[in-house]
Amino acid sequence: MIPLKKVVEEAYNRVLPHVHQTPVFTSRLLNELTGAELFFKCENFQKMGAFKMRGAVNALLQLSEEQKKRGVVTHSSGNFAQAVSLASKNLNIPAYIVMPSNAPQVKKEAVASYGGMITQSLPTLEGRERTAKEIQDKTGATFLHPSNNMEVILGQGTAAIELLKQHPDLNVIVAPVGGGGLLAGTALAAHYYGANCKTFAGEPFAVDDAYRSLKSGRIEYNETTKTLADGLRTHLGDNNFPIIKALVSEIIRVEEEEIIQAMRLQWERLKIIIEASCAVPLAAILREPKHFRNKKVGIILSGGNVDLSNLPF
Amino acid sequence: MIPLKKVVEEAYNRVLPHVHQTPVFTSRLLNELTGAELFFKCENFQKMGAFKMRGAVNALLQLSEEQKKRGVVTHSSGNFAQAVSLASKNLNIPAYIVMPSNAPQVKKEAVASYGGMITQSLPTLEGRERTAKEIQDKTGATFLHPSNNMEVILGQGTAAIELLKQHPDLNVIVAPVGGGGLLAGTALAAHYYGANCKTFAGEPFAVDDAYRSLKSGRIEYNETTKTLADGLRTHLGDNNFPIIKALVSEIIRVEEEEIIQAMRLQWERLKIIIEASCAVPLAAILREPKHFRNKKVGIILSGGNVDLSNLPF
Repeated sequence: MIPLKKVVEEAYNRVLPHVHQTPVFTSRLLNELTGAELFFKCENFQKMGAFKMRGAVNALLQLSEEQKKRGVVTHSSGNFAQAVSLASKNLNIPAYIVMPSNAPQVKKEAVASYGGMITQSLPTLEGRERTAKEIQDKTGATFLHPSNNMEVILGQGTAAIELLKQHPDLNVIVAPVGGGGLLAGTALAAHYYGANCKTFAGEPFAVDDAYRSLKSGRIEYNETTKTLADGLRTHLGDNNFPIIKALVSEIIRVEEEEIIQAMRLQWERLKIIIEASCAVPLAAILREPKHFRNKKVGIILSGGNVDLSNLPF
Repeated sequence: MIPLKKVVEEAYNRVLPHVHQTPVFTSRLLNELTGAELFFKCENFQKMGAFKMRGAVNALLQLSEEQKKRGVVTHSSGNFAQAVSLASKNLNIPAYIVMPSNAPQVKKEAVASYGGMITQSLPTLEGRERTAKEIQDKTGATFLHPSNNMEVILGQGTAAIELLKQHPDLNVIVAPVGGGGLLAGTALAAHYYGANCKTFAGEPFAVDDAYRSLKSGRIEYNETTKTLADGLRTHLGDNNFPIIKALVSEIIRVEEEEIIQAMRLQWERLKIIIEASCAVPLAAILREPKHFRNKKVGIILSGGNVDLSNLPF
């Protein structure tokens, strides 16, 4: 169920030449504010602006030559669509991206600019899945799930491996949790590359499916998706949940107002652009500092693709 | 008139241990857009969020022990006030900061948080100068001019020296010009550390005193200061102007709308927070790309202290 270290290591070596080794930022003021020593792994500076590039690259590199020729298909209106488009372009693989008809124009343009071939679908999950299936049937393209594909999970974990190679003595790593790919990958990295390094997650109260899943022991779902953290609206999957169950210490839930405050604090103090989803780990640390006090804490800053015309402050 | 290389080098070695060695960012998209290869020196990540830290540190370190005891005084409502406050705190020197009574509360708080002792003055240049003079008379503190003090000029130049040590083959460096301290320091760095590296500047049309000064051969002034680039409203001084006259190739003027566009472009593509003043060099490159095409171009990103509640987009 839990991938072997050898498999995790192979993914790291596979992904490394295709992504930016992102910098790690620190802030004296944010350390003082939290009572912890914080290390921010800046995946907002990753290619296409988010860690999703890592998972996309790893999944694409694991395809057979025949599969590469036929291409890949995914449905997403967010960073994974851009990641698959850009990684496919770099590797010369056709990428079919299903986007709901109501996806913002700016996101469609970003996908198109990276070379993704967009097919519009009905704006429901069922509509998206059906359109993706039609493309699979017609083209023979391989479907890539944005968070539950095991190669994607392993790829996302390479950000935390990089962070631990830069700072091997971290006591905790905190990631946001949405579909669970980043969190499962991060937990594997902490497990195999950390020295007793725990994994925590932050999650919005509004979409606390992962928190409830960890409590109940089975995958739970959200009834609404009303959170600013638009990357965290999805639910866990059958590949990433067992890893999360085995290796994640705790999921801390945060209010929307705390997300906005943590986002603004990081913009002002780190002078970097991060998404609302990306602000959730610091919000969790500020909400429950007792877990982190006097510890060395890694934070995965997941992405920086923000609509500057529509800021929450 | 022009400081010797030995003097420039001494300032570099003096400042180095007291400041962050800031990273250099690149962007494939911004390279494609300009036809140049751009290297962004991220002084927005400098201590207190701007290059001004460098000049303040250098000036303070050049004081005698007696002068250090009596402290320093400056008048500023911007980054130099914060820089002198923080550098003085780190070096255990009293810092008297004259701020106009109408300075924004947030700026007063920033100065106070770094330990600067604030005295309010009338909101005119004359009022600020008189209050600073009164403090000098009373305390024996040394007056530090934010852009025309030679030690400040030499300190500001250390950002470009660092950039040239990281990228010795730059063909051009572009800095913004306001009071002229950063531009003069940058030009000295390019002159002594570059291999035929030219210095260009960007300046808002609305406050184009430096452009006109270079044309007329004497220091010109601005009649109004209506630009978003609030760090660039001041005029040149008798120490920095001779350096600028001798070593700066050209000053390119830009419209307010071009500043806003360049600011937004850098926020979106580099995922970093920069001030309006800091966006002027890229605006200049985008306005007159012919000077930069197929060249390696360094850009001094001067600072990232932005009021997020009051963005121009």
